[in-house]
Amino acid sequence: MSPRLRHLTTLENLPRETIERLLDRANRCATPAPTAPAQADVLAGRTVLNLFFEPSTRTRTSFELAARRLGADVVNFDIGLSSTSKGEELFDTLHTLEAMHLDAIIVRHKQSGTPDELVRHAMSGVSVINAGDGNHAHPTQGLLDALTIRQHRPDFENLTVVICGDISHSRVARSDINAFTALGMKEIRLCAPPELMPGTNEVPQGRRFDDFDAAIEGADAVLMLRLQKERMASIELPDEAAYFARYGLDRRRLALAAKGCLVMHPGPINRGIEIASDVADGAQSRILEQVGNGVFVRMAVLNEVLAR
Amino acid sequence: MSPRLRHLTTLENLPRETIERLLDRANRCATPAPTAPAQADVLAGRTVLNLFFEPSTRTRTSFELAARRLGADVVNFDIGLSSTSKGEELFDTLHTLEAMHLDAIIVRHKQSGTPDELVRHAMSGVSVINAGDGNHAHPTQGLLDALTIRQHRPDFENLTVVICGDISHSRVARSDINAFTALGMKEIRLCAPPELMPGTNEVPQGRRFDDFDAAIEGADAVLMLRLQKERMASIELPDEAAYFARYGLDRRRLALAAKGCLVMHPGPINRGIEIASDVADGAQSRILEQVGNGVFVRMAVLNEVLAR
Amino acid sequence: MSPRLRHLTTLENLPRETIERLLDRANRCATPAPTAPAQADVLAGRTVLNLFFEPSTRTRTSFELAARRLGADVVNFDIGLSSTSKGEELFDTLHTLEAMHLDAIIVRHKQSGTPDELVRHAMSGVSVINAGDGNHAHPTQGLLDALTIRQHRPDFENLTVVICGDISHSRVARSDINAFTALGMKEIRLCAPPELMPGTNEVPQGRRFDDFDAAIEGADAVLMLRLQKERMASIELPDEAAYFARYGLDRRRLALAAKGCLVMHPGPINRGIEIASDVADGAQSRILEQVGNGVFVRMAVLNEVLAR
Repeated sequence: MSPRLRHLTTLENLPRETIERLLDRANRCATPAPTAPAQADVLAGRTVLNLFFEPSTRTRTSFELAARRLGADVVNFDIGLSSTSKGEELFDTLHTLEAMHLDAIIVRHKQSGTPDELVRHAMSGVSVINAGDGNHAHPTQGLLDALTIRQHRPDFENLTVVICGDISHSRVARSDINAFTALGMKEIRLCAPPELMPGTNEVPQGRRFDDFDAAIEGADAVLMLRLQKERMASIELPDEAAYFARYGLDRRRLALAAKGCLVMHPGPINRGIEIASDVADGAQSRILEQVGNGVFVRMAVLNEVLAR
Repeated sequence: MSPRLRHLTTLENLPRETIERLLDRANRCATPAPTAPAQADVLAGRTVLNLFFEPSTRTRTSFELAARRLGADVVNFDIGLSSTSKGEELFDTLHTLEAMHLDAIIVRHKQSGTPDELVRHAMSGVSVINAGDGNHAHPTQGLLDALTIRQHRPDFENLTVVICGDISHSRVARSDINAFTALGMKEIRLCAPPELMPGTNEVPQGRRFDDFDAAIEGADAVLMLRLQKERMASIELPDEAAYFARYGLDRRRLALAAKGCLVMHPGPINRGIEIASDVADGAQSRILEQVGNGVFVRMAVLNEVLAR
Repeated sequence: MSPRLRHLTTLENLPRETIERLLDRANRCATPAPTAPAQADVLAGRTVLNLFFEPSTRTRTSFELAARRLGADVVNFDIGLSSTSKGEELFDTLHTLEAMHLDAIIVRHKQSGTPDELVRHAMSGVSVINAGDGNHAHPTQGLLDALTIRQHRPDFENLTVVICGDISHSRVARSDINAFTALGMKEIRLCAPPELMPGTNEVPQGRRFDDFDAAIEGADAVLMLRLQKERMASIELPDEAAYFARYGLDRRRLALAAKGCLVMHPGPINRGIEIASDVADGAQSRILEQVGNGVFVRMAVLNEVLAR
């Protein structure tokens, strides 16, 4: 059996067995067996701290609900975005929090690598979980996306997925690629405006496309990324309508994919920019299932790193 | 028996029996019987979300305490006042939260009708409780005001109450009127500056007064409303002192009411604007009882919509 | 036995027996006996409110963790710093919160004396705990500093401590002095720039020094205070480097103290201003032990004022 994780900062290089163990456990959280012992006590007496240097109500709430459902206490440590954001001050904050006898720190930070730095400085007995760092990794998102696909199409070795949008700045895309690769996905296609496509030195995996029509052809799942409005200026497209025309997911494009292609998005969605409303709300949309799976995956991760 | 409520967005058109059931239950929360089972487990495992688009520490805290005392988990979803405040984005937020497996959403929004919109879009199994929407309704305030009066004067059919202040913009006044009407109150008097008195098309009930001395004569309860300072400009009174002289509650005016007239205010009070300090702090003041009843009424409402 | 405390606003004039009872209880929280009943239920059903008028994530989190570990519910009442900060509005807020059936209010306020004012206005049955008021008192910090010293050197009658920095504006220094005096400390030395040294009318105890080298000679513990950057202007030193040269703790100075001298700081530390990094992180530093003891001391205080 692959060793139990003490931290989770990235999915990169995680063994397939570990990822599958987490997904299996998340599935059990989703559908508790009638005879299973109550989950509400698994983490009783444990304290989890949300340390968010970037605002994110959705992800923070998802982690908070996951921890509470396992019986853990949750403390939100609201931190000024300007202060304590780097260097020694960050580690002083870390050590101060550890000294208060916390069991896990869930961290989001705009600087890539911050969770790994916390791991290097963390005292024994404190787990660090990455809730998103820069454009580096968002491992629980990668897991929940893999879980959502697996619930519909467990035969990853036959599947083709497309990830479309601002891949260059996307930690979601990187963690998705790591998860899908580990699980033996047949083909991962990346579609982005040239300015928003990472180099192969940065992201070696995936078959690259600029033409979304070509990328989506025959795909079994399409994962749209959120376009940060401040990125619009950097790409050679005049406006949001032009972006949507080239890289947006509408019904015409979805019809090019395989029958029953799963439509996914990490949220919050920009309707009419990267995805048409009728597709986001349509029968093939798995967007809300992703949200629900997010809680289950976070329960599984907290259980992995914290259970006695 | 009137059917159990799944949502509570307004008291309008609620059967008297339903309102009395909620008040009876609130009373039992206030004075638990020694032999009654502990309340702390009634909502164990349920999750309640505070979704406040308008800041309100008092009401949010009251709901939070009510939910916790019944054993529910409470999550505060702090939302930027500018973002996610209307239209499709609001429903995307709703659906995202629902997908996290919440049981109830307590919502406050400056736009009248938002809670009803959420009900129309809510998935089965999620309850919506209105914590105040625009000038439309604040049903738990209406219930707690009715409960406070009933604890002192259960003979509503003999009672005359005055509601005084900015009735036009007041969701509290509307919910009070709905509660008192349903419970068979003998007479509801409305007293306001002409500019702040709603038309009978808007608020059909109540006998209208401009002269507070006349309105309060013989009243059994007087409910003062908070004057929003930004309204001052719109009424033909030069300043706060002039407002207080015409529409403020002082000892002289209170003496015109019936003996033992209950003095009430939803808080926070503006001392010296709508109410004199010695009256707010005097023997007839029920203002702090209202606050305490607020927790009990919210426990009753959460129990109504959530208990298995 | 000294009477049980109902409130804790200052350590001034507390009997030695009371302080020792709190420290003994804090020690038991730190090292629970295997046969002791679980602490998690001691305050079950009790509600504690954090009422912070000054931002302080560290102290607020420490109190929150302490209360939760005893099974209490904790509500954070986030208050605008401008509103409700003084006079009648403050007491209206107090009474409103009390009416919601809270058991304890933990208050921090920039105005000295606010917690004592709350005590004077508090209803019977509500405890007030001071989490820091102006430059007056920070009693749980005084207790945790005493506890940290006692864990290493219980023989207070043989000990010399130095408190160094902006003593004039420091509520920490005042509460430390009160605790150490009550516990029979042999000698308390105060070292500060003349502009930041309180008069003996304000702080009668302690032997005063301007020269840190002289003050630290032979000391058994040195407590450094945080220099608020806005104070820099008021003292006759050109910059932070000059402050550090005169009043900072570095290795050379620490070598003047007694062997094994404890290095303490209430945090957050300003590295290179009042303390050198290698000393803050060195073998003699007790700074993180102080943080851990903070949770235990707050558990002891909550237990003292709230346990049935």
